[in-house]
Order: sequence, then C-alpha cells, then structure tokens
Amino acid sequence: MLDNITIVLVNPSHPGNIGAAARAMKTMGLSRLRLVQPADYPCAEATARASGADDILARAEVCANLEEAVADCVLVAGTSARSRTLPWPLLEAREAAGRLAAEAGAGDRVALLFGRERTGLTNDELARCHFHVTISSNPDYSSLNLAAAVQILAYELRLAAGAAPARPAAPEAPEGEPVTQAEMEGFYGHLERVLVATGFLDPDSPKRLLPRLRRLYARARPDRVELNILRGMLKAMEKHLQFRRPTEPGD
Amino acid sequence: MLDNITIVLVNPSHPGNIGAAARAMKTMGLSRLRLVQPADYPCAEATARASGADDILARAEVCANLEEAVADCVLVAGTSARSRTLPWPLLEAREAAGRLAAEAGAGDRVALLFGRERTGLTNDELARCHFHVTISSNPDYSSLNLAAAVQILAYELRLAAGAAPARPAAPEAPEGEPVTQAEMEGFYGHLERVLVATGFLDPDSPKRLLPRLRRLYARARPDRVELNILRGMLKAMEKHLQFRRPTEPGD
Repeated sequence: MLDNITIVLVNPSHPGNIGAAARAMKTMGLSRLRLVQPADYPCAEATARASGADDILARAEVCANLEEAVADCVLVAGTSARSRTLPWPLLEAREAAGRLAAEAGAGDRVALLFGRERTGLTNDELARCHFHVTISSNPDYSSLNLAAAVQILAYELRLAAGAAPARPAAPEAPEGEPVTQAEMEGFYGHLERVLVATGFLDPDSPKRLLPRLRRLYARARPDRVELNILRGMLKAMEKHLQFRRPTEPGD
Repeated sequence: MLDNITIVLVNPSHPGNIGAAARAMKTMGLSRLRLVQPADYPCAEATARASGADDILARAEVCANLEEAVADCVLVAGTSARSRTLPWPLLEAREAAGRLAAEAGAGDRVALLFGRERTGLTNDELARCHFHVTISSNPDYSSLNLAAAVQILAYELRLAAGAAPARPAAPEAPEGEPVTQAEMEGFYGHLERVLVATGFLDPDSPKRLLPRLRRLYARARPDRVELNILRGMLKAMEKHLQFRRPTEPGD
C-alpha cells in the first residue's frame, strides 16, 4: 500500500536534503520519490546523506514539472506552512496521512508534495492540490527542515497504513472510477480555453478565477463519468464559439 | 506543560546531532535538554546545526551520569530500537507520548532518553526506565538517526500535550459564505437552459445527466463567490448562444 504513495520534492536546492528525505522515507517503508527540477542532482552529497537509502535515489524520477510528477495520481496533497490568501482545505498531518493511506490502500496512486526549502510551494502549485497539509509546530519557531517534515509525514503515513489495512476508500473519495491528475489538467486546460473564447476570462487579467475553479473541482473530485460529462459540456459549448476562435488548437 | 518534559541524550558522539536534536525539539515547543557525557560539547558544529535553536543549547545541562540527568523526574522512558533479553513494558511512540504528556500535565517532571547513535541505550540504562519506547519503522531499514527519532517523539509529545492550535474549519464545510438551496436551484436551472441551448442536453432524452451534475456540485458545496463565478460562466456562454434560443426566458 505504501508503494502507492509518491513523495514529490519540488525544486529542492540542496542535494543533501534529497538524500536525507530518501533516508526518512525508507525508514518508514516509503520508496517512491519524484524530484521536480532539483537544483543539483544527481550529486554525491545526496547519496552520502541517503546513508543506505541510495536505492530510493536510484529509483527516483526526475520530472520536468509538477504536472508530470503527479500525472498518474488521483489524490494530491501539498504541505503548506502558512495560510494562503485563497483558503483551501487544510488538514493536520495525521488526518492527511489517514486520507492518503486510505486511498492508497484502495489501490490508487496518491502524491504528497513538499516545496522549496526556503519558500515552500507556490500558490500555483498549491492550487493543484486537493488539500493542504500542515504539521503542528511551535508558532515561535516553526522551521522544520525539509527532511524533518518528510520524516514526520512518512511516520504518520506508516502508522495510517498499518491502522487502515485495506480499508475501503474514504467517503470523500469519488464513488465511481477515479481520474488521474493528468486527466484533470486536460479538463482545466479545456475549461480555460472555453472561458477565454467566451470572453469571461481575460488572459491579460485572469485575477484568481482559475485557482478558484480548481479549488471547486478539486473539492468535488469528479469521477470518470462526471469528468466525461464536464468535457462534453465544454465541447458542446465550443461548437457555438468556433467563429470566435478560428485558430485555437483542438481539444 | 511541555516545560516539564526533559529530553536526555546519553553519550552522543557527534555534536552536529546535538544541534539537530535541539532544533527538532524547538520546532515542537520542547526546551529542556540534558546531555549525559557528550563526546564533544560545547562545539561550534552543534550551534551551527541548531540553526536558531541555540537558546536550547545555551540552557542545556551537561550531566556526569544518567542518574543525575533524571534525578528530578517522576517518570522515565527510554527509546529502544530492538527488543531486549529482559522484557520490559514497551510502548509505541504515540502511546508513550500520551503517558509522558499526561504526567507532565499533572505538574510532574518526566524524562525521555535517547541513546548513542550506533548502539542506543545499554541494558543498564534501559533498566532505569519505567517503560521503553519504540518508533514503528521499516523492519528492513530502521536506521532512524538521532535527530529524526527526537523529531518524531517531540512531534508526538506536542500533539499529546494538546498544544496543537484549534484546527481550521473542516474541509467539508464551505469556507466562504454559504448559499441557500434556492440559490443552488437557480444555478441548476440556468445550467440546464444553457446545456439544452448548446444541444448537449436533449430535453426529450435527458438520461441521468442533471442528477449527476447535481451530485457533483452538491459534493463541492460552492460558496457565494464560487456560485457567482459559475453563474458568470453560464452568462458568458449564453451570449454566444442567443441566436439559437430567441424565445428563451431571461435569467
């Protein structure tokens, strides 16, 4: 079940932290690591800090962007230290681990994202998550380093996986066949094109319209049938918009 | 209450680990550190690794032996990676943290011991504990380093102490201003008109399209701002559909 959980480090600066994160993962039985644009990798320092968890590094996948790193996942959670301007569902580490483990136990792939050492995940990256995860810490000194954050969440995931062996999917999970994040991105791209074509979305002044829509649909978590309906709606609307967007690429 | 919990590092070899342990403690609000015969302390490397938690180091007490380090404590727990020849009460980290926090909360001092990096606590040291503590880990790779073990137990102690701030609103409830069911019905009616106008929904053979969409949006529970966005999207699309539905009632 832990094999269905992917840890994603987004843009880590220090190779030592990648190695330490791999070690933290392995101590808890996690093995699937993806790195989005690591600043310096592969690197001897990463291997040194992995200290026996170098098999995790050897199997780690380097991804060109976040989209690629979560494409095969049906549930995506992102760690976030601070509250954001656009509120998003925010779960404590323990509850988040329970949700992730439950869906992983049901056979689906899930991802847990960790951001940059200094600045965490960007708002755009957080907008691609179904929920955000916070680790309770000292408000006067919450400087958990990257490997420490991975260690705590890996620990919680291990306990959650043990506590919920083959538990049926959480009630929040879609009842039908789940869709991958890549399919959701396809929908978001399609939605954006239609909204621009209708004139509702001004690409030069998008405001927070798309993040708001992402949040709404992430909360709803459409299943495959529902996503097909949503895509069908967009296609039907597009037929009426053809005259407005003669050069748009097809879907 | 966390002030009544003393972390004791017994005979640590590497000053960097002392600093990292201090940092791990401080992130979780623990501040009382005692060092039994540290191999190399004080040391610049410890301060460097403490990274802002040097106040913990400054207040740390160096003890000549374990007896001195736990003299004022009423309850002593010792971390132990392996099972010992002489069975002892052995608690998982979470349960152990609960016990320690409960007594600390009652006003008594308690201690949690961590052993040497390579060999842990000796049988003699473990025999001075009321109970032993184990952190669940991968049986094939349980090499949690010292700071990682301190981090996990400090995290469990923080949660057990109830120091976690009140959790933000449950994700299931809308965070913004809720909308009435009447407003949702207005949206569903609008959506249906647009879908019919685009040709996506055939009123003579609606199948289960609308119930499916209702279920999807009910799950998402849009708040007022989100519902306004959804209505705005429909209106923007309608402008392109006017030529098709000259006699439709306005919204």
